[in-house]
Amino acid sequence: MEHLKISEAQRVIFESLTTLDSESVLLEHSLGRVLADDIRANRDLPPYDVSAMDGYAVRSADLAQVPVTLEVIEDIKAGDMPGKIVQPGQCARIMTGAPVPQGADAVMRVEDTQEISTNLIQVITTIKDGHDVRPQGENMRNGDVVLSAGTEITPGVIGILATVKITQMQVYRRPRVAILSTGNELEAINDPVDMNKIPDSNSYALMAQVQALGITPALLGIARDDPAELERYLKLGLEYDVLLVSGGTSVGVHDYVRPTIEKLGVAMKFWRVAMKPGHPLAFGVLHGTSGASEKGATQRDAVVFGLPGNPVSSMVCFEEFVAPALRRMMGHTRLFRRTVSARLAHPLKMRPGRTEFVRVQLTHDDTGYIASSTGTQSSGVLLSMARADGLLVMPSDSTGLAAGAQVTVQLLDGTVYQDGTNIRE
Amino acid sequence: MEHLKISEAQRVIFESLTTLDSESVLLEHSLGRVLADDIRANRDLPPYDVSAMDGYAVRSADLAQVPVTLEVIEDIKAGDMPGKIVQPGQCARIMTGAPVPQGADAVMRVEDTQEISTNLIQVITTIKDGHDVRPQGENMRNGDVVLSAGTEITPGVIGILATVKITQMQVYRRPRVAILSTGNELEAINDPVDMNKIPDSNSYALMAQVQALGITPALLGIARDDPAELERYLKLGLEYDVLLVSGGTSVGVHDYVRPTIEKLGVAMKFWRVAMKPGHPLAFGVLHGTSGASEKGATQRDAVVFGLPGNPVSSMVCFEEFVAPALRRMMGHTRLFRRTVSARLAHPLKMRPGRTEFVRVQLTHDDTGYIASSTGTQSSGVLLSMARADGLLVMPSDSTGLAAGAQVTVQLLDGTVYQDGTNIRE
Repeated sequence: MEHLKISEAQRVIFESLTTLDSESVLLEHSLGRVLADDIRANRDLPPYDVSAMDGYAVRSADLAQVPVTLEVIEDIKAGDMPGKIVQPGQCARIMTGAPVPQGADAVMRVEDTQEISTNLIQVITTIKDGHDVRPQGENMRNGDVVLSAGTEITPGVIGILATVKITQMQVYRRPRVAILSTGNELEAINDPVDMNKIPDSNSYALMAQVQALGITPALLGIARDDPAELERYLKLGLEYDVLLVSGGTSVGVHDYVRPTIEKLGVAMKFWRVAMKPGHPLAFGVLHGTSGASEKGATQRDAVVFGLPGNPVSSMVCFEEFVAPALRRMMGHTRLFRRTVSARLAHPLKMRPGRTEFVRVQLTHDDTGYIASSTGTQSSGVLLSMARADGLLVMPSDSTGLAAGAQVTVQLLDGTVYQDGTNIRE
Repeated sequence: MEHLKISEAQRVIFESLTTLDSESVLLEHSLGRVLADDIRANRDLPPYDVSAMDGYAVRSADLAQVPVTLEVIEDIKAGDMPGKIVQPGQCARIMTGAPVPQGADAVMRVEDTQEISTNLIQVITTIKDGHDVRPQGENMRNGDVVLSAGTEITPGVIGILATVKITQMQVYRRPRVAILSTGNELEAINDPVDMNKIPDSNSYALMAQVQALGITPALLGIARDDPAELERYLKLGLEYDVLLVSGGTSVGVHDYVRPTIEKLGVAMKFWRVAMKPGHPLAFGVLHGTSGASEKGATQRDAVVFGLPGNPVSSMVCFEEFVAPALRRMMGHTRLFRRTVSARLAHPLKMRPGRTEFVRVQLTHDDTGYIASSTGTQSSGVLLSMARADGLLVMPSDSTGLAAGAQVTVQLLDGTVYQDGTNIRE
């Protein structure tokens, strides 16, 4: 089989997946989820014309000639209803958010007036009809769809949900994800140190990548290079919506993962993608119906990602393929890592053929972002990933880049905030 | 008091805060936290020279003249120890991650060899000493600091922690945060709809903004415009590390919040910042010792943010001041929202004087990001915030911008992922 391009592999994955069913969550547990239903306004907001300022509700026509002295006829707080109609030559003291009384059509801010006595003010500037008045229904009109199904629930969206008094709503379910590491060479985290073994970091790095998407995965542990043991583990993993297996999908003679997965009814869609690091990457689908011949077999579809055993490769494959897949299952439309444009701090060599992901740190100067390699790009060196702010993408036809070249960098976790504000006040 | 610049207000806040004490967390609960201690390697990794490829461990000197036929003397899997020494004319079949046997100094990848018989291969290319060998200690050396105190725990960092077998670690504590809304005009989320009231969205939008930082806040509810009730609520709120009060800090005659806070011993540091939206913003500090005269008073410092009652203003102030403060308390050094450069899609008017934050949506074309306003910029219209990808920052001396101008945009929640990959493969 040919090496697939990244975008082709992503397309194969997306064609094999659907958005999951929905479930009900409480408002306080909804952040980051995706709405499965439209949300409608339950009233006009504001319910009537309200003041946008602390000041005086006036008749704008009274201010045609200034200065002018106005009588203050009442005091309207937010939450109060006006008791009087503002007549020519009159005004009402009004608070932000309070209803504009009948007769008045504009609000003069308190800073632009002068108090002459308790119930007399002087106004020296003119304002137009509607000035500093927020009209009825400006925010939302009763019955209108204010949030569509498919909307990601951000803090602003939660503000809207609270505004229309939604305390519970339908959101797309999160996939159940299982993580399995494979290989005799691996040492479990609670095992004593054995110099001849390699600590299992993939289970935990993958766990954290899954957690970063709001999903709590199940860690199945480490399957040894034994077909029977591997089959037991894989069978268990296929009861989840998504199974991530790291290691054991290489072309070497001791890799049992692929044949065992296929034996369990998984249709392998591809196992090679033209990227570096990230070789090999396998993807397969178990259809609930075809896989349901044995007792206890799942009735649902399951998908399997066979990830490289190398820690960096495993993490990069997760970013490019697994995260988009999991986000799609949760109803998201934004599936890919945010990119920024950056200037390369130093030359980069490249052997064309496969798209390369280079771990970089980002700094910032007056002209924008500067990307510099985190050091060795060996896929065994996980520290280069731990230090990375992003993945610089080298196109497959590139033969290298000079210092100063403009590059595209995918931002990784930990980059939502930055050291300085980078704003000019 | 003068209006402070944003950066001045941030400086005042940071000077009033310290990083909190540390606590122990399990590895699986550590994502997003900040390490309070250095982490050291517990062994050399790799523990010896290992193969970077599936292939044959060879003596590079044997390949001085190719083609050459080599005898395969054994089969070394990852996790195995080599049993034999590779002599001239010999090689060993080796898996990725397996130890390079004595005598061999390089690895020839399996793709570059031809099997002649079970224990004979032909090699047609030469390689140098060390080729595809990952030397002992390449990843980390026993005893070296691999992660410094102050490191944010990302998935890559969790991979390193698992590598050095840290299952529990000290991280900086999260602040305890209380949220209080104030005002007679507010309707609680479970109250029946009252056309004369305004639904309390601030409590929930702030809740979500706090949650987005990994903190579960306490919602104290709504305090009415009554000095005694307000005092009870504020006293309760000051038992937390951070109290967020929205509404009631304006200059209007009915605002009891500031005097009541001051009565409770809080030293107000400022209450006006030259930004829009975001007026008024108050910040105060209660020192544990000075506030401890009454029974039950807290012994710890507490800080109070008085946020505007307008939903958008409240959220923007949170982003610019509260989030950086909370992140600093948790030990983060990256305190400010990630910024990107964008091209303005349309002209923007501006009255100079205060730094303006314009809610924008971001799209992308071949030349980079394009920012366009989400619509009305009235601080009462929360939908404009719910739809926003970012806050475009207009400097205070700006008199407006033309379409096509380069602008700085702070990315909001929901922008960690994007619609397309924006990469060239």
